[in-house]
Amino acid sequence: MDVFDLPAVDDLLKTALNEDLGAGDLTTRLTVAPTVAGRAEIRAKQSAIVAGVLVVRKICAVAGGEIEVAERVGDGAPVAKGDVLVALSGPAQALLSIERVTLNFLQHLSGIATLTARFVDAVQGTRCRIADTRKTIPGLRVLEKYAVRIGGGANHRFRLDDGILIKNNHITAAGGVAAAVAAARAGAPHGLKVEVECRTLAEVDDALAAGAEAILLDNMSVEQLQQAVPRIAGRAVTEASGGIILENVRAVAATGVDIISVGALTHSAPAVDLHMILLLT
Amino acid sequence: MDVFDLPAVDDLLKTALNEDLGAGDLTTRLTVAPTVAGRAEIRAKQSAIVAGVLVVRKICAVAGGEIEVAERVGDGAPVAKGDVLVALSGPAQALLSIERVTLNFLQHLSGIATLTARFVDAVQGTRCRIADTRKTIPGLRVLEKYAVRIGGGANHRFRLDDGILIKNNHITAAGGVAAAVAAARAGAPHGLKVEVECRTLAEVDDALAAGAEAILLDNMSVEQLQQAVPRIAGRAVTEASGGIILENVRAVAATGVDIISVGALTHSAPAVDLHMILLLT
Amino acid sequence: MDVFDLPAVDDLLKTALNEDLGAGDLTTRLTVAPTVAGRAEIRAKQSAIVAGVLVVRKICAVAGGEIEVAERVGDGAPVAKGDVLVALSGPAQALLSIERVTLNFLQHLSGIATLTARFVDAVQGTRCRIADTRKTIPGLRVLEKYAVRIGGGANHRFRLDDGILIKNNHITAAGGVAAAVAAARAGAPHGLKVEVECRTLAEVDDALAAGAEAILLDNMSVEQLQQAVPRIAGRAVTEASGGIILENVRAVAATGVDIISVGALTHSAPAVDLHMILLLT
Amino acid sequence: MDVFDLPAVDDLLKTALNEDLGAGDLTTRLTVAPTVAGRAEIRAKQSAIVAGVLVVRKICAVAGGEIEVAERVGDGAPVAKGDVLVALSGPAQALLSIERVTLNFLQHLSGIATLTARFVDAVQGTRCRIADTRKTIPGLRVLEKYAVRIGGGANHRFRLDDGILIKNNHITAAGGVAAAVAAARAGAPHGLKVEVECRTLAEVDDALAAGAEAILLDNMSVEQLQQAVPRIAGRAVTEASGGIILENVRAVAATGVDIISVGALTHSAPAVDLHMILLLT
Amino acid sequence: MDVFDLPAVDDLLKTALNEDLGAGDLTTRLTVAPTVAGRAEIRAKQSAIVAGVLVVRKICAVAGGEIEVAERVGDGAPVAKGDVLVALSGPAQALLSIERVTLNFLQHLSGIATLTARFVDAVQGTRCRIADTRKTIPGLRVLEKYAVRIGGGANHRFRLDDGILIKNNHITAAGGVAAAVAAARAGAPHGLKVEVECRTLAEVDDALAAGAEAILLDNMSVEQLQQAVPRIAGRAVTEASGGIILENVRAVAATGVDIISVGALTHSAPAVDLHMILLLT
Amino acid sequence: MDVFDLPAVDDLLKTALNEDLGAGDLTTRLTVAPTVAGRAEIRAKQSAIVAGVLVVRKICAVAGGEIEVAERVGDGAPVAKGDVLVALSGPAQALLSIERVTLNFLQHLSGIATLTARFVDAVQGTRCRIADTRKTIPGLRVLEKYAVRIGGGANHRFRLDDGILIKNNHITAAGGVAAAVAAARAGAPHGLKVEVECRTLAEVDDALAAGAEAILLDNMSVEQLQQAVPRIAGRAVTEASGGIILENVRAVAATGVDIISVGALTHSAPAVDLHMILLLT
Repeated sequence: MDVFDLPAVDDLLKTALNEDLGAGDLTTRLTVAPTVAGRAEIRAKQSAIVAGVLVVRKICAVAGGEIEVAERVGDGAPVAKGDVLVALSGPAQALLSIERVTLNFLQHLSGIATLTARFVDAVQGTRCRIADTRKTIPGLRVLEKYAVRIGGGANHRFRLDDGILIKNNHITAAGGVAAAVAAARAGAPHGLKVEVECRTLAEVDDALAAGAEAILLDNMSVEQLQQAVPRIAGRAVTEASGGIILENVRAVAATGVDIISVGALTHSAPAVDLHMILLLT
Repeated sequence: MDVFDLPAVDDLLKTALNEDLGAGDLTTRLTVAPTVAGRAEIRAKQSAIVAGVLVVRKICAVAGGEIEVAERVGDGAPVAKGDVLVALSGPAQALLSIERVTLNFLQHLSGIATLTARFVDAVQGTRCRIADTRKTIPGLRVLEKYAVRIGGGANHRFRLDDGILIKNNHITAAGGVAAAVAAARAGAPHGLKVEVECRTLAEVDDALAAGAEAILLDNMSVEQLQQAVPRIAGRAVTEASGGIILENVRAVAATGVDIISVGALTHSAPAVDLHMILLLT
Repeated sequence: MDVFDLPAVDDLLKTALNEDLGAGDLTTRLTVAPTVAGRAEIRAKQSAIVAGVLVVRKICAVAGGEIEVAERVGDGAPVAKGDVLVALSGPAQALLSIERVTLNFLQHLSGIATLTARFVDAVQGTRCRIADTRKTIPGLRVLEKYAVRIGGGANHRFRLDDGILIKNNHITAAGGVAAAVAAARAGAPHGLKVEVECRTLAEVDDALAAGAEAILLDNMSVEQLQQAVPRIAGRAVTEASGGIILENVRAVAATGVDIISVGALTHSAPAVDLHMILLLT
Repeated sequence: MDVFDLPAVDDLLKTALNEDLGAGDLTTRLTVAPTVAGRAEIRAKQSAIVAGVLVVRKICAVAGGEIEVAERVGDGAPVAKGDVLVALSGPAQALLSIERVTLNFLQHLSGIATLTARFVDAVQGTRCRIADTRKTIPGLRVLEKYAVRIGGGANHRFRLDDGILIKNNHITAAGGVAAAVAAARAGAPHGLKVEVECRTLAEVDDALAAGAEAILLDNMSVEQLQQAVPRIAGRAVTEASGGIILENVRAVAATGVDIISVGALTHSAPAVDLHMILLLT
Repeated sequence: MDVFDLPAVDDLLKTALNEDLGAGDLTTRLTVAPTVAGRAEIRAKQSAIVAGVLVVRKICAVAGGEIEVAERVGDGAPVAKGDVLVALSGPAQALLSIERVTLNFLQHLSGIATLTARFVDAVQGTRCRIADTRKTIPGLRVLEKYAVRIGGGANHRFRLDDGILIKNNHITAAGGVAAAVAAARAGAPHGLKVEVECRTLAEVDDALAAGAEAILLDNMSVEQLQQAVPRIAGRAVTEASGGIILENVRAVAATGVDIISVGALTHSAPAVDLHMILLLT
Repeated sequence: MDVFDLPAVDDLLKTALNEDLGAGDLTTRLTVAPTVAGRAEIRAKQSAIVAGVLVVRKICAVAGGEIEVAERVGDGAPVAKGDVLVALSGPAQALLSIERVTLNFLQHLSGIATLTARFVDAVQGTRCRIADTRKTIPGLRVLEKYAVRIGGGANHRFRLDDGILIKNNHITAAGGVAAAVAAARAGAPHGLKVEVECRTLAEVDDALAAGAEAILLDNMSVEQLQQAVPRIAGRAVTEASGGIILENVRAVAATGVDIISVGALTHSAPAVDLHMILLLT
């Protein structure tokens, strides 16, 4: 049982098919005879880390089940331009009808895995993990966070109910770091750690004093992080976030933070360029 | 009645809220008293063209209706760093609970509008229109294509049933450009034009001879386009697609094509950086 | 992949099964032992053009998959009283439980195909096509328009987003035929033609002058059509609509219009009389 | 709380809106300025019994809530050509966007109410009730059976779980009328009567002997019914069904049967001709 | 086709899987290698009447289909501590991921069947039937009433539309028992009996005079029932309800009532203790 | 924004209304005139802790919005027999139609809150918290866990994705406690603690050595717990589970465990007896 077997993902696949097909594939119906059969290959037009190859099989199952699918690479595999990701065979009409939906999933998820892998590579050799955020495209969070894992990244919270992260706005509403952390610790489910966002060393001190188990060092410069990490000294998990890009991620990791979280992994990863080639049989 | 009133969009808003809230906002429940009220502002952290401000109002309505929403800018407005897009007021718990979902929609749609506007600006003064494609994020097509319009772009097909675009794979299955176009013309609904993808001038000639009403000039160089457009000479709508980026779009437009379609508008637009600031009252 | 494979159609099949079964088939449970197996035949009680035979297979798949289905005719086949459309075999309980839902789809879709075929036959030998409208039964449009195609008809728009048809109420709101057509032409997606409803020859002239690509001649008499069609003279597609019934459709077609659209195909087609006969094995 | 408040009906309204709107009303967006306001009237183009006027209000609520709705007649009212059913006012764009969906519901439900009323009128003065069947359009049963009531008819079963009606196929599977009725009586929930379909007087005798509480006299001629009804002599409710049309319904009713059920009420009622007229303000 | 094949039940299974899995089974993913295969047994930890074993097979089908399922007992079977209900085999990850959802259904439905069987046993030898009510857990009514049947009980109404039961609040609103019963009889569908709740012998007299076909003797003591039943003397079905528990149910049955309905069967049945044991292969 | 504002809960309310209403409330339609208005009170028939009073307001909103609702107590309030929980006023038809659905939610959630409160009271004065489990009724987890909080309990995991709890079956598949804990620690998201189920003191030692942050002491006797807790000595959170009932919960708490989790809170809590009384106005 994988992420693509989740009923919620199945609903998304159906939504995507409905969204693209509407009342059916008009061009294909008009131009391709139902009896034409073929093979098709989904190929990379650039280097990438692949994520989502199982989507093809699931979409074909939803869309009538006439297509045979053979994955040529697994999720996480690096591919180069021209490599075949998935081979399909079946009625040409069916192959053409599912082409775009399939590619839309694959190109988006592979884009996330590819960008994640670049960040992960950049911190190679440090003890730092690259993590995602809740800054995801609405409706795709489960799949996007799966793609982050495929790219070698770690998942932060999935939702507002499965982690405690006290952010600046909470601190405003709670009346300060200390009050917010204390309240969270008093009521936190026993399996969750209390994390709090700190913008200054003073807030870090307050957070530690109040018993924070993880500290998000928010929008700090490398210099600030170099002070904060030894000050925390392992008493809490440390996470750096805000303004971290490929160009500076290694410097941030070198400060010794445990986690670097990057919203761009999911909200701004460029799609990987893929295409499907139909070959008659 | 706007695009955000569509029942299908309402379903997407609910899916997004469920996805982010799960069983509810734990951090907020633990750290913020239900009696705390506040104001909040959604502000830009960079220059952008805004799209989706009405999403805020709709999400607040779905999420219990306790929040008052005042849009400070309309969709299509240019904003600079620090500008307020939307002002909200109500219980702090409610404001915090809808923050992320709201921003996720706004940052994605504004990203698309902003990128589209850059392409549109780049061809300013030519008669060429910038159009989107079906290369969209699954589940968001209606909103993404709306954002393209907000950015000044034109919409290509919404689905496989509302336009006829004979692509290379169809041509393979149909046995050539001429056969495909003829078949499409014979069966096309009377309100739709028949468009066909051509990679060579020979294919263009075949397409015109077969009665194509629009021709997508696929992955052609500017030089090829300079030959193709006068050859078509207004007998069909001309569309250029494939490999067109901000750096070369004006040169492509200068060839005289009617339409330039760009997949990146929807599949690779970076999110606009926005945040919500809570202010107690 | 056919229309019955669309996820939206699958949802309709499930809705229909739920609607008819509720908590299950009480009479069958009380009167038929689970061990009884049988064959069943869906037979015509009148002459008809069949549409929807694949529905049987899909409904049986949704309802537990114990029934074997053999289509004896394909969609579009003419049947006479007593002809078998579909043969089934399996547990008698299952056969009885899906009987009514199956027949409800088949009798409605075949009714539409049959009525459409009568209109198509009536204009045989002219160059005129019979088309449907958006006057469909809520929730069934995709299937009803499929049945129209099976009966030999053509599909008009599927939705408000996939065609441009300026109707009288639009003209009122836009301030006249010329203004409405001009506005539509300026903003129309490049793959769609602009069609406008005209009630008088003066409106036809305005429409042509403004660049309309199709003209719906609304509720015109045969005499008016005889004037309008040569006046348009091929400069736009011509469509006649309003008050056209089997008795006058040939006269309308003889005026030379390209398309005759008939709302009754979908909103008033009488069901075809079918029944299912159970035979024990 | 009326039938239009049922969540399942609300789902149907949303499905119908999605089905017609897709990504939105393109023609209206292109030709009508957002600032244009208007009034609109839904008028009859023929005599009819109205059913479904509340649908207009519900659809307008789903579609953004900008339209004011005033019902001019109630369900069950007779209208003549030109009568106004519902008056609306609001933005012209919104009025145009909901026009077709609204009319599609109203014309279908009013068609059913109108046909039902004709049957009910035809048996006026007898003690016989006109009832519907489960031969309904998939997805619309609750509304269609509501329209039957509005037309003065009675509802038969809604589903397979809320009534016991042993049909010929059950009798085949159960091994005869007596066995089937006995089995049903033994297990029937205490609030439901056991009804059985009989085709001959011998079957009627068997049914009565086995304790049937209602007998459906299936496809019997008036002469057969004249024998069957006095033979049953009030020991069971009597229902006639099969082949009953407006021309013979009074003769059937005169035989003294309690109920006449007519599938055509729901599966073949022609739509009532209605239209919406927009008037600028 | 069984109750677990109903599309509405399928929706419930998916809802339950989504509810438990969210983004997937984290613990299993972290601790169990995908290559580990195993067998598992669902075993009883107490004596019980089993209901719902087919749920296991359905849930496994929804969740990716990699698990083989063998039911060791059928619904309605009595099991003792240690007995195996269902044996499964497949990937350990999949087995662990569906464990809890599966058990949650089985323990709840078996709890209802077990409690029902205790009531049925308690009235063994009388002619009285034990029936359920509409006091069910929201969303589970079809399955809970199925479990009641498995336990030997009878089903009362499924919904507000499939039976007529005039309760005290209706009597208040209608202006008395006689008025309420008369109104119901006048309009009742011909397949439904009119039942009315009576709290006194005077109300019973009114009900019978007005033609009630079933009488619910509401919250009456055994002594009152002993008077009421002979007074009704078979002129109506008799049902006792209110305050009936295992300790007094036989005394109530001995009064000669036809039906005893017990809300606790569905709203308060304790779960049966079950567990799943994984065995590596 | 409260738990009843979650879109997923809204879906459950609609499902429950559909489930109970079907095609509408037949008895009420037949016996109560639409013009009758009334007040109604939902009253307790026993002592209880109330949970879910806001459900009434939400259900009334879904069901047409004609009813005014006034909560007389808040969730968490103790009520005695005869106390009014909620007062309603509106059309009698509407009040009667929503009665049962409303009560079904309230009686179930209040049952859970009441049982939870009894466990919480029983450990009063100790530092131990009473927690729920994932042994919930399918589809109701969010509401059931809310009711546990209302009763004073704490929430354990909501799903398989928001906590790490290594159970016996995982240990089997992973090859022992140490291997399982180590694997989980290596991959755990930074906000989650790693909890492991231990059945013996040896397993506890293994768990601690491997770095477990919480230990579920599974089915241990009070004597075993008395050994285990000091052995752990605060190095991990301690949770006792298995076979804990009201009679022994205080003794378990006295062993010093941090958490006691009880499946019966959600899977076996008896409903609280409530009713609605209609009063005409």
